[in-house]
Amino acid sequence: MLHELTKELQREYSYAIGPYRDPVMRVEPGDTVAVDTIDAFEGKITDESVKPSSIATLPFVNPLCGPIWIEGAEPGDTVSVQVLSIQPVGPQPRGVTCLQKYFGLLSPTASSLSEPFPEVVRKVDVTPEGVFWDEDIVFPYEPFVGTIGTAPRLETVNSLTPNNHGGNMDLPDIAPGSTVYLPVRTEGGFLYIGDVHACQGDGELCGVAIEISARVEIKVELIKGWSLDWPRLEDENRIMSIGSSKPLEDAVRIAYNDLIHWMVNCYGFDKWDAYFILSQAGRVRIANVVDPLYTAGAWIEKRYLKGGK
Amino acid sequence: MLHELTKELQREYSYAIGPYRDPVMRVEPGDTVAVDTIDAFEGKITDESVKPSSIATLPFVNPLCGPIWIEGAEPGDTVSVQVLSIQPVGPQPRGVTCLQKYFGLLSPTASSLSEPFPEVVRKVDVTPEGVFWDEDIVFPYEPFVGTIGTAPRLETVNSLTPNNHGGNMDLPDIAPGSTVYLPVRTEGGFLYIGDVHACQGDGELCGVAIEISARVEIKVELIKGWSLDWPRLEDENRIMSIGSSKPLEDAVRIAYNDLIHWMVNCYGFDKWDAYFILSQAGRVRIANVVDPLYTAGAWIEKRYLKGGK
Amino acid sequence: MLHELTKELQREYSYAIGPYRDPVMRVEPGDTVAVDTIDAFEGKITDESVKPSSIATLPFVNPLCGPIWIEGAEPGDTVSVQVLSIQPVGPQPRGVTCLQKYFGLLSPTASSLSEPFPEVVRKVDVTPEGVFWDEDIVFPYEPFVGTIGTAPRLETVNSLTPNNHGGNMDLPDIAPGSTVYLPVRTEGGFLYIGDVHACQGDGELCGVAIEISARVEIKVELIKGWSLDWPRLEDENRIMSIGSSKPLEDAVRIAYNDLIHWMVNCYGFDKWDAYFILSQAGRVRIANVVDPLYTAGAWIEKRYLKGGK
Amino acid sequence: MLHELTKELQREYSYAIGPYRDPVMRVEPGDTVAVDTIDAFEGKITDESVKPSSIATLPFVNPLCGPIWIEGAEPGDTVSVQVLSIQPVGPQPRGVTCLQKYFGLLSPTASSLSEPFPEVVRKVDVTPEGVFWDEDIVFPYEPFVGTIGTAPRLETVNSLTPNNHGGNMDLPDIAPGSTVYLPVRTEGGFLYIGDVHACQGDGELCGVAIEISARVEIKVELIKGWSLDWPRLEDENRIMSIGSSKPLEDAVRIAYNDLIHWMVNCYGFDKWDAYFILSQAGRVRIANVVDPLYTAGAWIEKRYLKGGK
Repeated sequence: MLHELTKELQREYSYAIGPYRDPVMRVEPGDTVAVDTIDAFEGKITDESVKPSSIATLPFVNPLCGPIWIEGAEPGDTVSVQVLSIQPVGPQPRGVTCLQKYFGLLSPTASSLSEPFPEVVRKVDVTPEGVFWDEDIVFPYEPFVGTIGTAPRLETVNSLTPNNHGGNMDLPDIAPGSTVYLPVRTEGGFLYIGDVHACQGDGELCGVAIEISARVEIKVELIKGWSLDWPRLEDENRIMSIGSSKPLEDAVRIAYNDLIHWMVNCYGFDKWDAYFILSQAGRVRIANVVDPLYTAGAWIEKRYLKGGK
Repeated sequence: MLHELTKELQREYSYAIGPYRDPVMRVEPGDTVAVDTIDAFEGKITDESVKPSSIATLPFVNPLCGPIWIEGAEPGDTVSVQVLSIQPVGPQPRGVTCLQKYFGLLSPTASSLSEPFPEVVRKVDVTPEGVFWDEDIVFPYEPFVGTIGTAPRLETVNSLTPNNHGGNMDLPDIAPGSTVYLPVRTEGGFLYIGDVHACQGDGELCGVAIEISARVEIKVELIKGWSLDWPRLEDENRIMSIGSSKPLEDAVRIAYNDLIHWMVNCYGFDKWDAYFILSQAGRVRIANVVDPLYTAGAWIEKRYLKGGK
Repeated sequence: MLHELTKELQREYSYAIGPYRDPVMRVEPGDTVAVDTIDAFEGKITDESVKPSSIATLPFVNPLCGPIWIEGAEPGDTVSVQVLSIQPVGPQPRGVTCLQKYFGLLSPTASSLSEPFPEVVRKVDVTPEGVFWDEDIVFPYEPFVGTIGTAPRLETVNSLTPNNHGGNMDLPDIAPGSTVYLPVRTEGGFLYIGDVHACQGDGELCGVAIEISARVEIKVELIKGWSLDWPRLEDENRIMSIGSSKPLEDAVRIAYNDLIHWMVNCYGFDKWDAYFILSQAGRVRIANVVDPLYTAGAWIEKRYLKGGK
Repeated sequence: MLHELTKELQREYSYAIGPYRDPVMRVEPGDTVAVDTIDAFEGKITDESVKPSSIATLPFVNPLCGPIWIEGAEPGDTVSVQVLSIQPVGPQPRGVTCLQKYFGLLSPTASSLSEPFPEVVRKVDVTPEGVFWDEDIVFPYEPFVGTIGTAPRLETVNSLTPNNHGGNMDLPDIAPGSTVYLPVRTEGGFLYIGDVHACQGDGELCGVAIEISARVEIKVELIKGWSLDWPRLEDENRIMSIGSSKPLEDAVRIAYNDLIHWMVNCYGFDKWDAYFILSQAGRVRIANVVDPLYTAGAWIEKRYLKGGK
């Protein structure tokens, strides 16, 4: 069945991911949902003269759609979300990026004594053909879902923080063609989604990618009895584990360790052999080094997985 | 002119990079040198029954060839080292990897109260056709120079530690076809090289790649008056800055920041525009998260550099 | 007015701090509350043979009393909580400490491949005269409130995590004679309290102090219009700012920076002069380096504050 | 025997600690040495108008006296240095502190895009009665040796970096009345000393304490066959282990772990019991969070050591 999670149905966006909110939609495993997400600034940066600080106030940033209730989802299960397509929407220039005060990897932090960077805004045309930065530079259109997660058991996490429930991972691999696996920690799962990026560099250096509103089509399935510690991802050629922590090496550590467990439990590898193989053929994507926790994905190509006994 | 830095010429290996040692060779800018490097365990792990702890004692590990004196090199210059080729040498199985006590990203550290991992050794055949792990798995032969650096001004750094002089960066991009730029901080430059890997995963997870002895051909040139804070790299399609620090986000921060300065100073970009462009199109390689400092390379594709004014 | 927040009134403990729960009590500014807290293991480690893992399951650990509604508290205000007294309660041996799996500064983490430490439990007599460890060692009875906080605006934070709402700071200075200042971020403030320690070393090395159930008397006041970014503390001789983050230097950075702002805004110091003075006379308490975020308090003695103009 | 290591004898200061330099003096175990140290800016900040960047250039900062050869010292031994007294010398105002570009815990780093802090200099009178900051504030005179270390086996470390050889630890406990233990890693030990501070806050917040030139009297002894991984310290009431690393929690981890080993090996404690006791009664001094590696000291009071079996 195909559902539409429109702006009207969403009514008000969610700035946090948790179990204390009524679901806006209920779906069956196997259903498809078309979600109308809004950009991270809720569409309020209408031109390059709008200062981000004038329209966004913490914690009311990075608005999300949801929660979506998944019938039959119980703690200990896994929700599988396949990204089918991402279409940019809205009037051009529909992409926005900016420098925000005390945000970004190279910025002084609010707990320094330094002045913040200037608040510079750039609006750009985004089409499926590319992100048109200026007359010389066109970035490829490589859209992905910046924020996706399920509710923790007790906690409500602001929509800017990634953790073991998913959240604002800003991982470019959550893109059409891939499937992300999220742990169910509360009945119904409570799926949230938003924060689409038209493209993004590794680490999301200044803290803001090319933010767009979009229509995201996802297919939701339920894997009973598969209990995850951290989010995982799979596409045609790879399996990837996703860690979020600070400092960044802890995110890498979490991701690689989870990937070893995946190789051991599902592909029959010996623990030390999996450790060795990732030492020679593992790959790491730095997703973000700007959010309250940093995110890294570690993957192995599927062609190496036949080596499991 | 072609020089050969053979094992006989090297006589004894160097376990540290610094200015307090007589050069083993003097070259002119433009010369080519064929260096016979030895593997990180100095060839002492002759079969899988040899425990690493029985043959390697800190700080006498990761032996290097050099120092090579570059005629005309003065503080404030840059040495350019183009990697021409890397040939594996020695009797098969010539590749070795292992688990060492209290070493590797997932290992307890010596300052924990935990038992170390077991000392497991794997020896594998390595040819230009591949790294033959077992009957199912062949890793591609993607050789690179694990350790390369020039002498600091005052310091002598052990051969395991990367820093702004280069050193044990374990960056897989220092491979045939690429050119690495290293700062000259002492007269003659004092170039050291060694620690070839036949292949390696991002981060060098267990701390040991497929270590091999090799013949490495390099072309050495001198760029007068180009003063670098950190090592850089260039190949046909990319320019990359290389940072080493702890925690890992600091290495990424150093690399991206240096890359911005490179874009501003050599390609005419505005500072904030370079920051924006890397936020959307920058890429990061995690080289190692296991050495005393961690290394990351940040790059941008050259096709975006025409946008500088 | 004196309130009693008894076990009966509390009915069920809270394992998280947030705004989505009905207050168990309403107090006026100026009121005194006697809170019957329970130990971090909810009293379930009845003797040294009980394994912690058999009675505590994340996230249902570190139970708290509350939330307490403070009349008149609105976002932008500050709640002042003076600790009047802490009395240990319950049958002897009433103090408990233990090694938990994959917890503590020197422990391998769950994301390593190492075996956990053994689950060792120690129960000890605790009286106002001391903590009786063995025939040779008596630790002084220096009780404090390990966890105290107010609800964030949107988030619900598990009771193990400290942050800018307070929470599980494990700061020994929150003791009889001191006053802690907490930000009001939601109407009514929603004060939570629990996790009393009879004594604790700096950093709470193994992750568990001498945990006790206790009767804690506090006096609650409201400071209208004083808006805090982070918790603060004051006693007869000192003012202290409290930061929680990872890595630990970020917690110290937050604390010192907040203390500078306090000196500038309330005591008339020039920004750079405050920075200089703390460089020469500031003091730092490492509260915990074991919780999901680490906590540090930075203080200055009041005798130096007369220097503000 | 009493030696004097005067400015004339020192001739030129050392900006690095290592084995590649001729000793300036040879002493026997049991000898006393009076060392005339110079302040960290080599006395060149003669008044408050002198900009630090105009007189100090990396790596030529933080000048040290030495190396001192200790007769009989061999790798595997320990040098014991008792600090007997520290007398401030030179014309008033003889104390100096300052803000240096891109240095200090709250400063932007050179790898940010921020402007540096202003270069502010403060000169102050220092006597054994106090550090006279202004008409309101007098800091107590609590002098200590900021930098002391022995040569590593292979490395030469700049005088700004602390590590397991000692070095620029900036630990206020290395003061009259205490004894610091340093590992001998090269024949003769090669002891370096300098960088006296008249007082300092925990962490050395802005990166510069009250720097003074001084006459430091030390008594040097040799402990044969006691091999240290990290520096240690002892005074009348405490034993302390000293770790240096980044991030800061690693320095704390190193220090506490080494202290456990000390308690186990020299005082007869069981490993887990030592871990428990430090969890309840251990103390931590944050020495510096501004140098290339951060330093922490962890200690236990001697009155608890009788509990070892």
